[in-house]
Amino acid sequence: MRSFKRELARIRTRTRTELCDDRNAYRAVSDEHLDLGRRMRIYCGVVARNMVIAEILLTGKVHLVRKPSRERSHPIVMPSEHLPPRDILAFSGSPQRASVKSLSDHGPLATTTQPVAKNGSAVPWKKGIFEISRMRHTQERKIMKALVYQGPGLKEWKEVPEPTIITATDVIVKIDTTTICGTDLHILKGDVPAVEVGRILGHEGVGTITEVGSAVSSLKVGDQVIISCVSACGHCDFCKKGVYSHCLADEGASGIGWIFGHLIDGTQAEFVRVPFAETSLYLLPPGVTPQQGTVLSDILPTGHEIGIQYGHVKAGDVVAVVGVGPVGLAAIATAGLYGPSRVIAIDLDANRVEQARKFGATDTIVSSDADWKEQVIALTDGLGVDVAIEAVGIPQTFTMCLDIVRPAGHVANMGVHGKSVDLPLQDLWISNINISMGLVNTNTLGILLKLVAQKKIVAENFISHTFALEDILEAYDVFERAAETKALKVIINA
Amino acid sequence: MRSFKRELARIRTRTRTELCDDRNAYRAVSDEHLDLGRRMRIYCGVVARNMVIAEILLTGKVHLVRKPSRERSHPIVMPSEHLPPRDILAFSGSPQRASVKSLSDHGPLATTTQPVAKNGSAVPWKKGIFEISRMRHTQERKIMKALVYQGPGLKEWKEVPEPTIITATDVIVKIDTTTICGTDLHILKGDVPAVEVGRILGHEGVGTITEVGSAVSSLKVGDQVIISCVSACGHCDFCKKGVYSHCLADEGASGIGWIFGHLIDGTQAEFVRVPFAETSLYLLPPGVTPQQGTVLSDILPTGHEIGIQYGHVKAGDVVAVVGVGPVGLAAIATAGLYGPSRVIAIDLDANRVEQARKFGATDTIVSSDADWKEQVIALTDGLGVDVAIEAVGIPQTFTMCLDIVRPAGHVANMGVHGKSVDLPLQDLWISNINISMGLVNTNTLGILLKLVAQKKIVAENFISHTFALEDILEAYDVFERAAETKALKVIINA
Repeated sequence: MRSFKRELARIRTRTRTELCDDRNAYRAVSDEHLDLGRRMRIYCGVVARNMVIAEILLTGKVHLVRKPSRERSHPIVMPSEHLPPRDILAFSGSPQRASVKSLSDHGPLATTTQPVAKNGSAVPWKKGIFEISRMRHTQERKIMKALVYQGPGLKEWKEVPEPTIITATDVIVKIDTTTICGTDLHILKGDVPAVEVGRILGHEGVGTITEVGSAVSSLKVGDQVIISCVSACGHCDFCKKGVYSHCLADEGASGIGWIFGHLIDGTQAEFVRVPFAETSLYLLPPGVTPQQGTVLSDILPTGHEIGIQYGHVKAGDVVAVVGVGPVGLAAIATAGLYGPSRVIAIDLDANRVEQARKFGATDTIVSSDADWKEQVIALTDGLGVDVAIEAVGIPQTFTMCLDIVRPAGHVANMGVHGKSVDLPLQDLWISNINISMGLVNTNTLGILLKLVAQKKIVAENFISHTFALEDILEAYDVFERAAETKALKVIINA
Repeated sequence: MRSFKRELARIRTRTRTELCDDRNAYRAVSDEHLDLGRRMRIYCGVVARNMVIAEILLTGKVHLVRKPSRERSHPIVMPSEHLPPRDILAFSGSPQRASVKSLSDHGPLATTTQPVAKNGSAVPWKKGIFEISRMRHTQERKIMKALVYQGPGLKEWKEVPEPTIITATDVIVKIDTTTICGTDLHILKGDVPAVEVGRILGHEGVGTITEVGSAVSSLKVGDQVIISCVSACGHCDFCKKGVYSHCLADEGASGIGWIFGHLIDGTQAEFVRVPFAETSLYLLPPGVTPQQGTVLSDILPTGHEIGIQYGHVKAGDVVAVVGVGPVGLAAIATAGLYGPSRVIAIDLDANRVEQARKFGATDTIVSSDADWKEQVIALTDGLGVDVAIEAVGIPQTFTMCLDIVRPAGHVANMGVHGKSVDLPLQDLWISNINISMGLVNTNTLGILLKLVAQKKIVAENFISHTFALEDILEAYDVFERAAETKALKVIINA
């Protein structure tokens, strides 16, 4: 402790410029960044290509984010809700762990495991002491209830502070309707380590704006909006190309567009802060219910963009969808927009494939049949399907798609995978097939919204159960037992 | 032998219709198929989806072809050059081997290992006796010299019969110029088991037409033509879509467009029979030499179609080509047509990457450098390349492409792979990348030919060595030692 204070005294005697030049790795921030509502960044660079960035949000959070996003590492967000003004933070590190301490005798704020570079080597954290000279008091926060991740296997419907505007492009939305995604279950299993304890889950929903940031002009308090599961700054290179899924803005983490219920607090709550509101919210038009709108937050765009558009479905095609959970059904429901000759629903569950007909499947195959593949091929001209869409996320179903696609066909992966798959390039190099994959951009949300409004897509078909927000734990229970409860989307109304 | 004769006598007493109905699996052929130049087929079906077809070509070959092509099995071609007229063939089989016997005391014509279905189970051959009642004498054949595959590791420059017109859409071409492909080396290693002993190798070349089939109207004797490495019937579903690589015609094997030097005799000879001549040959225009034209048979279209077009290279893109052998260089040479901002040549060999600049590479990276990847990323905006083109055919180089491609970028595989690769879908599912692969269609050969004629593509840059046809074994030796001899395309002039 004494050595930190000595170091602090030494730093205090130096100008900002000197700090900047210190080993050419530290940069101080200019005064203009220290207004309320702006972020203050301190770069404590380690090596040129693996920079550690400490983001001190003036609302009272300390973010440590590793750059660049190419490394696909996730940000490490350290909550420090009670950080006092004019606090001193000490960053210290070892090869295995890094910690941040408040030097105002608050003790360690958080400790986190060292991030590991993609090649497996640990990236050492630089030690450094930084004076947060303009830190302001966290506002007195109101209390709301939210579904909070409490570590693997643990979730809690609990009181938390209401969100507040952080940047001028934010809005606050009071949730009217939300839902649960298979990804939320993955997070609860501990499969998504970037999600920290204390995170409010959920990335889908419709709500009503209660507060707008100073830069928001096209949305106003009282507007009812669909919340896109992907947050898009609208300005970066990826957003300009419609690849919102890899938005380069620093909200959450640069390069990752899915941040709700992942890197920032999500929609399974009474209120949610929505960054980049004007490029991430869609006004709910008359005639579309909040429940229908909630289906547009994620699954309909995912099925459409990652299944049908990436699969290049075109008139006359035979399309097979392997796995007919909600997202597989969303692909089936949007395939018809492109005029395929057949849409084949394939699943282990005979009930599920049958219900796929309601969404537009023309043929159904139960994949536990020994001759399931022959059944698929028999529905083509003997050469295989034009487009095979993977909607499960395991190696077996990915391989099924490779097995049934015709030469020059497309395999569109929609599943969220937990392990690698064996790609038999010794057979496939000559096949002229195309394999696509990705996170939804929701850049077709607006188009799909029109089609839902015009009843061309029947969004309510996806809704199997409805709960009140305070019964969200029961909704989780039903959704987790989908095989038994036949749950598709469980709608949760506030 | 006696039992065959008894069976034959029994069959002879039956009409063709009865043969057709025999177990509903045999079909006799109608008289109209027995004209000279037509094929006679006898179907001795085994199971509905795994049909064995015996094709007796009237020029004196017996082909046994397994159908359907979905199984990706290769045809088994049994040479029986001296098959007499009115011969009787006996097909007999066991679970492991199948054989064809001539009953005119010529003894077994050939014996072949049983084809194995993709799921690993052997498909039993049906026994059957067929009367080849209209078989004609094989014409007295002239003799030419050709490079003949004699089994793994063995090749011979030897005398063989000159090819003759088989179907009305064939032409015979006297080879003026040919070359050797890396694929020929693969065949010689025994890596391509579909290539039978006795096959004339080669799938590239320019030559002069010496004979045309009766249905050929747009080509005439004396025309100098570029031979596409892919043979396209022009009529099947795939050909109509420009996917000549999977031409469904039965020449060679249905579903495989690359047949020269693979499933039928190739171009490393004094003469070659070219099937589907009007859709597989391109007139050599004035100002383009046969040597330049030979580069258009395969490598330039492969680089252009499978690297650049499948990789969706567009204006401003950063393109990386991993492996700068002839096909990698062909991708580099055609990338410029689409306006990329950078074309990065990557190879283990410092000499090769430097020579890539002559083809249009703007940057070069030696992949044995420990920081090769950082060097690539430094040439982008930090996010990776837009298009990574694999031009080697091993797991390591494929993985290199995955490592350097940016989100929403393209990996275009051009390499011919011998083993599967590990596809890390647990990282890539969210990446929005696209992976393409395939055999060239040569559907852009005509476009590239114009560009070569207009000097927009300098085809002669690919030519490192020139040999006379009779020195083809020396050409092979130089090409096989490319690392040492710096060989690119070795041109072989007749």
